[in-house]
Parts: sequence; C-alpha cells; structure tokens
Amino acid sequence: MESLEKEALLAQDYLSRISEEAERKFDEYLPSPKDRPCRLHEAMRYSMFAGGKRLRPALVKASFDLFKGKGESVYLAMSALEMLHTFSLIHDDLPCVDNDDYRRGKLTSHKQFGEATAVMAGDALCVLAFELMGKTGNAKAIEVLAHLLGTFGMIGGEMTDIECEGKPVDLEIVDYIHYHKTAALIEAALKVGALLAGASDKEIEAIQNYGRAIGLAFQIVDDILDIVSTTEELGKDAGSDIEKGKATYPSILGLEKSRTRAMELYEESIKALDALEMDTGILRSIAAFIITRVK
Amino acid sequence: MESLEKEALLAQDYLSRISEEAERKFDEYLPSPKDRPCRLHEAMRYSMFAGGKRLRPALVKASFDLFKGKGESVYLAMSALEMLHTFSLIHDDLPCVDNDDYRRGKLTSHKQFGEATAVMAGDALCVLAFELMGKTGNAKAIEVLAHLLGTFGMIGGEMTDIECEGKPVDLEIVDYIHYHKTAALIEAALKVGALLAGASDKEIEAIQNYGRAIGLAFQIVDDILDIVSTTEELGKDAGSDIEKGKATYPSILGLEKSRTRAMELYEESIKALDALEMDTGILRSIAAFIITRVK
Repeated sequence: MESLEKEALLAQDYLSRISEEAERKFDEYLPSPKDRPCRLHEAMRYSMFAGGKRLRPALVKASFDLFKGKGESVYLAMSALEMLHTFSLIHDDLPCVDNDDYRRGKLTSHKQFGEATAVMAGDALCVLAFELMGKTGNAKAIEVLAHLLGTFGMIGGEMTDIECEGKPVDLEIVDYIHYHKTAALIEAALKVGALLAGASDKEIEAIQNYGRAIGLAFQIVDDILDIVSTTEELGKDAGSDIEKGKATYPSILGLEKSRTRAMELYEESIKALDALEMDTGILRSIAAFIITRVK
Repeated sequence: MESLEKEALLAQDYLSRISEEAERKFDEYLPSPKDRPCRLHEAMRYSMFAGGKRLRPALVKASFDLFKGKGESVYLAMSALEMLHTFSLIHDDLPCVDNDDYRRGKLTSHKQFGEATAVMAGDALCVLAFELMGKTGNAKAIEVLAHLLGTFGMIGGEMTDIECEGKPVDLEIVDYIHYHKTAALIEAALKVGALLAGASDKEIEAIQNYGRAIGLAFQIVDDILDIVSTTEELGKDAGSDIEKGKATYPSILGLEKSRTRAMELYEESIKALDALEMDTGILRSIAAFIITRVK
C-alpha cells in the first residue's frame, strides 16, 4: 500500500494542476450572474465552484493527451463532464431524492437557493454541457456521452439506487448500481477524451476497460470512507449510507472483502492500460490515487 | 378569421398525420419498460404518450422537408424535440415549481410516479434527446438546440416566469418570459430541421424569424385560452395563470389587445415566409392554426 501511496503523488499533482486550468475554463463558459436569469446563473456557479477533485475533467485531459489529441476542444469536454457531474449531484441532493443538506462542506443547492432553482440549475448545467459538446463538432462523442449518462448509464444507476433503499439487495444489484451511477460517467470522461483525440477502436476499448475498473473502485472506496471517516473529514454526512439503508459493498461483503475487491479492480485497471503499450503514467497514478484516497 | 380557420385545416391534417408517424418513432427510440430501471422507463413513456399536438416534431419535419432534407436523421430530431418539450413539462409541473396535478387530462408525472421518479424521468428524457441528436451526426444542430434550450432560451424563460410570480411586471418582462419559455424551443425545432437539411444562412434566418413570431403568438393564445376556456376544454387547470399571479399578456394588455398582438405576430410570421420564395404552404397553415386554435 505504501508504494501505491507514493505512486498516487503524481496524480495529486496532476489533479491540482488540472483543477486550476479547468476552473478557469468553467468561469469562461458559465454564464455571468449579471445576465438574466441572474439567480439561476449564480446557482450554477455556486455548485460548480463548490470544490471537488475535478477527477472527470482530469480524466478527459489525460485520455486526450495520451492519444495525442490537438486543439481546444478538450477544454469544452472537460467543462461539460464536470457540469454533468454537478447536475447529477444537485438533483441527487434534492429533498425528494437523497435529501442532503451539505455537500463538500457547503449547503446544497436547494438549501441555498430553494428547490425550484436547484431543479433548474441542474437542468441548465446538463443542457449547457451539451452545448459545449456541440461546439467540439464531434457528434459521436455526444452520442457516447449521452448514452453513458442516461437510463442505461448514470441516471439508471441513480434511479435503481433510490428504488433499492432500505430493501434487501444482492451483489448483482450493488454491482449494477455502482457501475451505472459512478463508473459510467468516469468511463464517459475517458472515452470522450479518446474520441476527441481520434483514438482507434482498440484504444477506446482499452481505455473503457480501465475506466470501468477505476470507476467501480472509486465507488467502493467511497462506500468504505462513508463508514470509516468522520463528517468533517468527508465534507458531507458520514455514515449516511447506513442511515438511508443504501445498497453498498461494505453492507454486503463487509469492509475487508470490499477493500480486497477494490484492489482487484486496481489490478484490472493496470492490466487494461498494459494493453495500450503507451506511456500511461498519469492514468496509472490516478488509479493508485483512487485506491488510496482518504476523502 | 373565418378564412384563417379554413387555412388552418391543412395544418390540422398535417399535425395528425405527423403525430402518428412521430409516435411510432417515440416508441422505437424510448427504452422498454421491461429493461431496468423499469419504472423510470415507464414514467418516460407515460409522459411522452400523454397526448399533445406534437407541434415541435411537426415543425422539425416541415422545415426539413421545405429545405429538401434527405434521410432518416429528421426522425431522430423530431423525437428529440418532443422529449425536450416533455422534459420541461415534467419539471415545470413539480410541486416545488408550478405544482400542477393534471396535464392534458392525466395525472402529472410526480402525481403518478412520485417526485424522485419525475425528476429523473425529466432528466432522462433530456439526456436521451441529446443521444438521438448525437446520432444525427450534426454537432452544429446540437449546439444551436442546446443554446435555445438553456438559460438564454427556454430554461431562462421558465426560471424568470417562476421568479416573477405574484410580482408586478411590465411588457418587457412578459415579452422576455414568453419569447424564452415558449418561442425558443419552437424556433429551435425549425432551425434544427433546417440545419439537418443543409439550409443556407439566409434560409435559416428566415425560418428563425417565422419561428419567433409563431412561438410568441402561441404563448399569447395559450394565455388567452387559460382565461376564456374551461378546465375540461383545456385538459389542464383553466384560470391557473391568474390564480398563481403569472405574468401574461392578458394580465398586462387585456384580452382584446392581446388578440391584436397575436394577429400582428401572425402577419410577421407570414412576412418571414414570403422572404423565402418557396412553397411554404404547410408553415403558413401552421401559423393560421396557432392563431385560431381553441385548445
């Protein structure tokens, strides 16, 4: 584990560098709070600038650069992916869904702006993401992204997650939920970066396999942290999964087996990268970061 | 007015023919309620098949055909536009927004399926619409559509509409709200059809002017009908605008001046078509239909 933590340092540097770059772009692409409808624009910015690791933009960039992409379209896609992630968080936090008051240590959108504005802010971020994707000129990337975001991807996972709350579930369902609600958008970030760079089908398959593995690992680690961390460390309500009767890996397999499963997924992700025979240092480090992170 | 009603008959025939064609496509493109997440897929279909004039798909088709478009992409766009319209209705009906129990004579989505599912069904229809648009291969059409749908278009209008409820407003604001919340998506339908058909910039400008005029006229007629019709005739709560203190044309100008404004917009729309020097019979008739409709 210690060598993995060392390996993760490169990813931490990369993430903080990309965060700065990405946030400058968010500011450029997000509508001004001086323009009508002002409060809605303010709400969109509030949630987009509420912090976070900016993992999805970093994955878009790392994949785009790996496949030698050229041009500015990558910044549009990086911003689009973070907007889509933020859209999903705002709607998930709503009283009728997860009913969360805090996210990343700040009031959630509906607590800060009211429910109607939160619904619309989520909608508006989703739509703006597709406007930015339209500007990339790559319709195929839009199709792939929307598919992984929709009912056979992220939204399908969220819906099933809600439906299964408090019900007995098996590993098949937990796998389905976790793959869809979390891994699908992580996979999408990598595929969009690869598509914009003009990667081959074989390359896209490899990056997809990597994405699925780290995506699932990411959610398992999230579930573990929800149990072993404090609310202060997480910046969101710790222990909330158990409280809500959420279907998680630790609730089915226990902590130790969940950790083992996360490590297996890490190994799978590295194997997927090996198939590429390229310098995949950044992506390797990101996998190590995901498996060793403490918040 | 009598000759306008005669003129509108062609549009009525066209709309009922296109409805059938469009609904077969909706059925093809919407996910099956047998696939997970079943209830969400059911909710998407419930709202998509709750009736309606299918005006936006008809406008996509009429514009695409006018500019001699070829191929199947038009069906993708027709379905996408109706999905986006339905997405906006589902979210507008939510308790935290307009809090409506009925729409087109049926229970609204959140009344039928619960709030969380209604939020997700709206989200899923929006995302699926962009997946279908991605399949058209036309990234420019996606950019234009998303822009007219976002905070500088439909969503901007809805948000301002909500914010202005019960407050004194002037004609400038009512124009802003109506243009954005209704005309923008109608304009988008026409522009998307034209872009997919490969229309010239000059042609797109003309169709845009037509769209803005009939879009605004459509909303003014809607506001008038909300006052002069019964709930049974409308299939939704009549008189609800006044009850909610909504900013409408009749509330500012009175019924008679609102009717005059709608007629002026009709004339504007016909003038925009005249600039095209093409056989615009269907679009003329649709303008007449919009101005003479009784529900």
